[in-house]
Amino acid sequence: MRIHVQNHNRDGNPKVTSSDWKSRAEKAGPVSKDIAMSFGCTPEDFAANISSAEGLICNARVLLEHLPAEAPCLKFIFLTHAGVDALAGAEDRIPPDVVVLNNSGVHGRKAAEYALMAVLMIANELPYFVERQQKKTWAKRVCTSVQGRRATIVGLGSIGSAVAEKFHALGIRNIGVRTRAGDHPYCENVIATETIDSILFDTDYLVMSCPLTPRTAGMLDRRRIALMPKHAAVVNVGRGELIEQDALLDALDDGRIAGAVLDVFVPEPVPPEHRLWSTRNLLMTPHVSAADPATYISHSLDILFDNLRCLREGRPLPNQVDFVRGY
Amino acid sequence: MRIHVQNHNRDGNPKVTSSDWKSRAEKAGPVSKDIAMSFGCTPEDFAANISSAEGLICNARVLLEHLPAEAPCLKFIFLTHAGVDALAGAEDRIPPDVVVLNNSGVHGRKAAEYALMAVLMIANELPYFVERQQKKTWAKRVCTSVQGRRATIVGLGSIGSAVAEKFHALGIRNIGVRTRAGDHPYCENVIATETIDSILFDTDYLVMSCPLTPRTAGMLDRRRIALMPKHAAVVNVGRGELIEQDALLDALDDGRIAGAVLDVFVPEPVPPEHRLWSTRNLLMTPHVSAADPATYISHSLDILFDNLRCLREGRPLPNQVDFVRGY
Repeated sequence: MRIHVQNHNRDGNPKVTSSDWKSRAEKAGPVSKDIAMSFGCTPEDFAANISSAEGLICNARVLLEHLPAEAPCLKFIFLTHAGVDALAGAEDRIPPDVVVLNNSGVHGRKAAEYALMAVLMIANELPYFVERQQKKTWAKRVCTSVQGRRATIVGLGSIGSAVAEKFHALGIRNIGVRTRAGDHPYCENVIATETIDSILFDTDYLVMSCPLTPRTAGMLDRRRIALMPKHAAVVNVGRGELIEQDALLDALDDGRIAGAVLDVFVPEPVPPEHRLWSTRNLLMTPHVSAADPATYISHSLDILFDNLRCLREGRPLPNQVDFVRGY
Repeated sequence: MRIHVQNHNRDGNPKVTSSDWKSRAEKAGPVSKDIAMSFGCTPEDFAANISSAEGLICNARVLLEHLPAEAPCLKFIFLTHAGVDALAGAEDRIPPDVVVLNNSGVHGRKAAEYALMAVLMIANELPYFVERQQKKTWAKRVCTSVQGRRATIVGLGSIGSAVAEKFHALGIRNIGVRTRAGDHPYCENVIATETIDSILFDTDYLVMSCPLTPRTAGMLDRRRIALMPKHAAVVNVGRGELIEQDALLDALDDGRIAGAVLDVFVPEPVPPEHRLWSTRNLLMTPHVSAADPATYISHSLDILFDNLRCLREGRPLPNQVDFVRGY
């Protein structure tokens, strides 16, 4: 098998190197035998390798830069991230019969740690104390334990499930929200997305951890934000577009909800003049919640090898993207 | 038995009311029978009740205001907090043969949640991102998972043990530090205080969670801070005096350690002109880490009833203060 890795040219995000590949291939065992690899980051590198590649490893932005491509041997594309919203509307440019795999699973642990941090910060009044610190003012405020509090977790994929597990370990009572109602080992109940209104009034922490699709875009809108109690807080580790952002910022500025810890926004990067920066009781991080660079590439390649194992054995591929569903 | 509760007059901190007492006494069962209670907060209330009281419930400040007192029947004093450093030097004013009980155990869960929040904030670069947010600047920085990181937990009493348990659940590798080396279910190793130098170089998160005593005052001094690696961070949920504060602030301002999350300071309240407020990579909360007001009083009374049970049965009292040891 021939697999080509097309890395991006931007700094900051991790790249797949041949030494990464070698070290994970060794661990993966037989499935990694007889794979010939090529690595590149220029258009020339891509052109020289894509015509013979059976597999392509890249991110969505790189993929869109190079599509459509003459890739007669291509069987699969492995995206180095979980969300495929950036490919929405561009599915037709992917050669037919090519399987797209996402990197779902790579973000769970780190994003769950971030969500746990976020609810602990809310319970410990960090948005308030950070503001007091800037004003050099000592002012106490009643804090709470998270134990026994109620979280509503929207999306129970790899990230939402990991969030539910970590919350449960601290005694937080979880309600999951997903496409269909059902069970989850770390949720007291799992309700269907269309019934979310029924639970918002009883939510202390609302965690957005679902993929961005046409069904989920703008899901937490002004009307739903108004259903939340005044002491509630919002955490977003999904995508900025899941929330009607201006409605959330209005609610924060007016004190109609208690706080928010957000990692994703519209737009990104957030420009200096944006109202986000000066919204009350909001703590912001620049889209860093879900990635642990120290383990990102090795974990990603392990996920790919799991899928290659299924491919060889004719089993369903756990990370195959369904563009109708949107993840 | 006659027990008098002398509440303070200050707002903010929880008080023991007769309805608190009734509800916990009911749960406590036989041990709470035949106890006559009185409640007060003025000097007159104290004077009217102390001469016949066998038990006194109050905090250290209230106790010092009323000592010495004519209390011929007094057998025990139950302090409504865990630390007894405020009584240092005043032990002689406590009538002889009166047992002093502290409230050790009431702070564990909440303080451990705070410490967990603190290390997650360090791993997620919150001190840096909070500063960026104030400057309205989008700037990414590599974050990490806490899994596999190394915490050094100084003090393994009720708070330190709870910290170790929560850290362990997230895969943090703990080294405990206490008076004598030994074992702990959630620590890889427990070393004696005097050998702490040997572990500081290998510490990602240093958590101060021990009582303030003459042995521990100034324990994290300038020399020891210099032994910590540049990426390390300090969390203090104990007492400000455990740390040579100026040395810590110098290290933070000079970037010789990565960050700190502090809940306790010298002095408290921190005055507006203090350098603490403008130290780099420091996040501050106003001595709120260990108290969960919603459950504080009920939990405190449960601890008292546990001790009364031991008293009646002639067993050692788990919360008896040893003023030589200092806790």
